[in-house]
Amino acid sequence: MNGRTPFGNVRGMTVKVVVMYTQPADPASFDEHYFGVHMPLVQALPGLERADTGKVVAAADGGEQTYYRITNLYFADQGALQAAFGSAEGNATAADFQKIAPPGTRMFIAAED
Amino acid sequence: MNGRTPFGNVRGMTVKVVVMYTQPADPASFDEHYFGVHMPLVQALPGLERADTGKVVAAADGGEQTYYRITNLYFADQGALQAAFGSAEGNATAADFQKIAPPGTRMFIAAED
Repeated sequence: MNGRTPFGNVRGMTVKVVVMYTQPADPASFDEHYFGVHMPLVQALPGLERADTGKVVAAADGGEQTYYRITNLYFADQGALQAAFGSAEGNATAADFQKIAPPGTRMFIAAED
Repeated sequence: MNGRTPFGNVRGMTVKVVVMYTQPADPASFDEHYFGVHMPLVQALPGLERADTGKVVAAADGGEQTYYRITNLYFADQGALQAAFGSAEGNATAADFQKIAPPGTRMFIAAED
Protein backbone atom coordinates (compact mmCIF):
# COMPACT_ATOMS: atom_id res chain seq x y z
CA MET A 1 0.00 0.00 0.00
CA ASN A 2 2.32 2.66 -1.30
CA GLY A 3 2.08 5.76 0.86
CA ARG A 4 -0.87 4.47 2.88
CA THR A 5 -0.68 2.52 6.10
CA PRO A 6 -3.07 1.73 8.94
CA PHE A 7 -1.23 4.46 10.90
CA GLY A 8 -2.34 7.96 10.18
CA ASN A 9 0.87 9.33 11.63
CA VAL A 10 3.10 7.54 9.13
CA ARG A 11 2.97 9.21 5.74
CA GLY A 12 4.65 7.75 2.70
CA MET A 13 7.40 6.03 4.66
CA THR A 14 7.06 2.62 3.29
CA VAL A 15 10.51 1.08 3.58
CA LYS A 16 12.77 1.20 6.60
CA VAL A 17 16.30 0.02 7.19
CA VAL A 18 16.82 -1.15 10.76
CA VAL A 19 20.45 -1.30 11.86
CA MET A 20 21.27 -2.96 15.18
CA TYR A 21 24.85 -2.26 16.24
CA THR A 22 26.43 -4.59 18.76
CA GLN A 23 28.52 -3.25 21.63
CA PRO A 24 31.67 -1.50 20.32
CA ALA A 25 35.00 -2.10 22.06
CA ASP A 26 35.27 1.63 22.70
CA PRO A 27 31.81 3.24 22.84
CA ALA A 28 33.16 6.81 23.07
CA SER A 29 35.20 6.53 19.88
CA PHE A 30 32.39 4.61 18.19
CA ASP A 31 29.97 7.44 18.92
CA GLU A 32 32.51 10.03 17.82
CA HIS A 33 32.88 8.28 14.45
CA TYR A 34 29.15 7.59 14.27
CA PHE A 35 28.00 11.17 14.79
CA GLY A 36 31.03 12.85 13.25
CA VAL A 37 31.40 10.75 10.11
CA HIS A 38 28.78 8.07 9.64
CA MET A 39 25.53 9.91 10.21
CA PRO A 40 26.56 12.84 7.99
CA LEU A 41 27.09 10.27 5.20
CA VAL A 42 23.68 8.75 5.95
CA GLN A 43 22.03 12.16 5.99
CA ALA A 44 23.44 12.81 2.52
CA LEU A 45 21.73 9.74 1.04
CA PRO A 46 19.42 10.85 -1.75
CA GLY A 47 15.80 10.08 -0.92
CA LEU A 48 16.29 9.62 2.81
CA GLU A 49 13.02 10.71 4.41
CA ARG A 50 13.78 10.26 8.06
CA ALA A 51 16.50 8.89 10.31
CA ASP A 52 16.64 8.22 14.00
CA THR A 53 19.17 6.57 16.23
CA GLY A 54 19.28 5.75 19.89
CA LYS A 55 21.33 3.92 22.47
CA VAL A 56 19.74 0.76 23.80
CA VAL A 57 18.99 1.31 27.48
CA ALA A 58 17.07 -1.87 28.25
CA ALA A 59 15.81 -5.17 26.93
CA ALA A 60 12.13 -4.84 27.83
CA ASP A 61 11.65 -8.58 27.39
CA GLY A 62 14.01 -9.34 30.25
CA GLY A 63 16.51 -10.95 27.89
CA GLU A 64 20.02 -9.90 26.93
CA GLN A 65 20.54 -6.29 25.92
CA THR A 66 22.35 -7.64 22.81
CA TYR A 67 22.69 -4.33 20.95
CA TYR A 68 24.36 -1.02 21.67
CA ARG A 69 22.51 1.24 19.25
CA ILE A 70 19.48 0.94 16.96
CA THR A 71 19.10 3.17 13.91
CA ASN A 72 16.14 3.44 11.55
CA LEU A 73 16.30 4.97 8.08
CA TYR A 74 13.13 5.56 6.09
CA PHE A 75 12.64 5.76 2.34
CA ALA A 76 9.49 6.25 0.27
CA ASP A 77 9.71 2.80 -1.28
CA GLN A 78 12.05 0.01 -2.38
CA GLY A 79 13.05 1.91 -5.50
CA ALA A 80 14.12 4.93 -3.48
CA LEU A 81 16.09 2.69 -1.13
CA GLN A 82 17.87 0.96 -4.00
CA ALA A 83 18.62 4.26 -5.69
CA ALA A 84 20.07 5.61 -2.43
CA PHE A 85 22.39 2.67 -1.93
CA GLY A 86 23.33 2.60 -5.59
CA SER A 87 24.45 6.23 -5.46
CA ALA A 88 27.94 7.58 -4.74
CA GLU A 89 26.65 8.65 -1.32
CA GLY A 90 25.34 5.14 -0.77
CA ASN A 91 28.69 3.63 -1.63
CA ALA A 92 30.44 5.99 0.78
CA THR A 93 27.94 5.13 3.51
CA ALA A 94 28.32 1.39 2.95
CA ALA A 95 32.11 1.64 2.98
CA ASP A 96 32.01 3.55 6.25
CA PHE A 97 29.50 1.08 7.71
CA GLN A 98 32.02 -1.70 7.08
CA LYS A 99 34.53 0.29 9.12
CA ILE A 100 32.28 1.17 12.01
CA ALA A 101 29.94 -1.81 12.58
CA PRO A 102 31.10 -4.16 15.35
CA PRO A 103 30.92 -7.90 14.61
CA GLY A 104 27.41 -9.30 14.90
CA THR A 105 25.76 -6.03 13.87
CA ARG A 106 22.51 -6.74 12.01
CA MET A 107 20.74 -4.83 9.25
CA PHE A 108 17.20 -5.57 8.12
CA ILE A 109 14.93 -4.09 5.48
CA ALA A 110 11.24 -3.91 6.39
CA ALA A 111 8.37 -2.90 4.13
CA GLU A 112 5.74 -0.98 6.03
CA ASP A 113 2.19 -2.16 5.84
CA MET B 1 19.30 16.01 24.91
CA ASN B 2 15.59 16.07 25.55
CA GLY B 3 13.75 17.00 22.40
CA ARG B 4 16.91 17.81 20.46
CA THR B 5 18.92 15.41 18.35
CA PRO B 6 21.52 15.73 15.62
CA PHE B 7 18.68 15.00 13.18
CA GLY B 8 16.58 17.95 12.25
CA ASN B 9 13.82 15.66 11.04
CA VAL B 10 13.34 14.01 14.42
CA ARG B 11 11.54 16.29 16.82
CA GLY B 12 10.96 15.49 20.46
CA MET B 13 10.94 11.73 19.91
CA THR B 14 13.49 10.74 22.41
CA VAL B 15 12.58 7.20 23.44
CA LYS B 16 11.68 4.37 21.11
CA VAL B 17 10.49 0.85 21.73
CA VAL B 18 11.75 -1.54 19.07
CA VAL B 19 9.82 -4.81 18.84
CA MET B 20 11.22 -7.59 16.67
CA TYR B 21 8.67 -10.36 16.13
CA THR B 22 9.96 -13.75 15.10
CA GLN B 23 8.21 -15.78 12.41
CA PRO B 24 4.68 -16.73 13.51
CA ALA B 25 3.41 -20.25 12.85
CA ASP B 26 0.52 -18.79 10.85
CA PRO B 27 1.47 -15.38 9.41
CA ALA B 28 -2.01 -14.62 8.08
CA SER B 29 -3.69 -15.06 11.45
CA PHE B 30 -0.82 -13.28 13.19
CA ASP B 31 -1.33 -10.24 10.94
CA GLU B 32 -5.09 -10.39 11.42
CA HIS B 33 -4.64 -10.28 15.20
CA TYR B 34 -1.84 -7.73 14.90
CA PHE B 35 -3.74 -5.19 12.81
CA GLY B 36 -7.20 -6.02 14.14
CA VAL B 37 -6.45 -6.16 17.85
CA HIS B 38 -2.87 -5.38 18.81
CA MET B 39 -2.15 -2.18 16.92
CA PRO B 40 -5.45 -0.56 17.99
CA LEU B 41 -4.37 -1.23 21.60
CA VAL B 42 -0.95 0.28 20.85
CA GLN B 43 -2.50 3.30 19.17
CA ALA B 44 -4.57 3.92 22.32
CA LEU B 45 -1.45 4.19 24.51
CA PRO B 46 -1.41 7.62 26.15
CA GLY B 47 1.60 9.65 25.00
CA LEU B 48 2.37 7.57 21.91
CA GLU B 49 3.89 10.00 19.41
CA ARG B 50 4.45 7.75 16.44
CA ALA B 51 4.25 4.10 15.48
CA ASP B 52 5.38 2.22 12.45
CA THR B 53 5.50 -1.44 11.59
CA GLY B 54 6.78 -3.38 8.64
CA LYS B 55 7.39 -6.89 7.44
CA VAL B 56 11.03 -7.86 7.17
CA VAL B 57 11.80 -8.42 3.50
CA ALA B 58 15.56 -8.93 3.67
CA ALA B 59 18.59 -9.18 5.90
CA ALA B 60 20.79 -6.58 4.25
CA ASP B 61 23.85 -7.98 6.03
CA GLY B 62 23.51 -11.29 4.19
CA GLY B 63 22.73 -13.10 7.45
CA GLU B 64 19.56 -14.84 8.57
CA GLN B 65 16.31 -12.96 8.18
CA THR B 66 15.62 -13.82 11.86
CA TYR B 67 12.52 -11.63 12.29
CA TYR B 68 9.11 -11.46 10.69
CA ARG B 69 8.06 -7.93 11.62
CA ILE B 70 9.74 -4.90 13.20
CA THR B 71 7.68 -2.27 14.99
CA ASN B 72 8.85 1.05 16.43
CA LEU B 73 6.92 3.07 18.99
CA TYR B 74 8.05 6.57 19.94
CA PHE B 75 7.48 8.52 23.13
CA ALA B 76 8.66 11.96 24.18
CA ASP B 77 10.83 10.61 26.98
CA GLN B 78 11.28 7.81 29.49
CA GLY B 79 8.60 9.28 31.77
CA ALA B 80 6.04 9.23 28.98
CA LEU B 81 6.98 5.65 28.13
CA GLN B 82 6.63 4.52 31.73
CA ALA B 83 3.32 6.33 32.10
CA ALA B 84 2.03 4.66 28.94
CA PHE B 85 2.94 1.17 30.08
CA GLY B 86 1.68 1.87 33.58
CA SER B 87 -1.76 2.85 32.27
CA ALA B 88 -4.79 0.61 31.77
CA GLU B 89 -4.15 0.82 28.01
CA GLY B 90 -0.55 -0.23 28.65
CA ASN B 91 -1.67 -3.24 30.66
CA ALA B 92 -4.07 -4.26 27.92
CA THR B 93 -1.33 -3.88 25.31
CA ALA B 94 1.17 -5.90 27.36
CA ALA B 95 -1.38 -8.67 27.96
CA ASP B 96 -2.13 -8.87 24.25
CA PHE B 97 1.59 -8.82 23.42
CA GLN B 98 2.01 -11.94 25.56
CA LYS B 99 -0.66 -13.60 23.43
CA ILE B 100 0.65 -12.55 20.06
CA ALA B 101 4.46 -12.55 20.25
CA PRO B 102 6.06 -15.73 18.91
CA PRO B 103 8.86 -17.27 21.01
CA GLY B 104 12.17 -15.44 20.62
CA THR B 105 10.52 -12.09 19.93
CA ARG B 106 12.69 -9.27 21.24
CA MET B 107 11.81 -5.85 22.64
CA PHE B 108 14.35 -3.10 23.24
CA ILE B 109 14.13 0.41 24.60
CA ALA B 110 16.47 2.95 23.00
CA ALA B 111 17.05 6.55 24.08
CA GLU B 112 17.60 8.80 21.10
CA ASP B 113 20.67 10.97 21.05
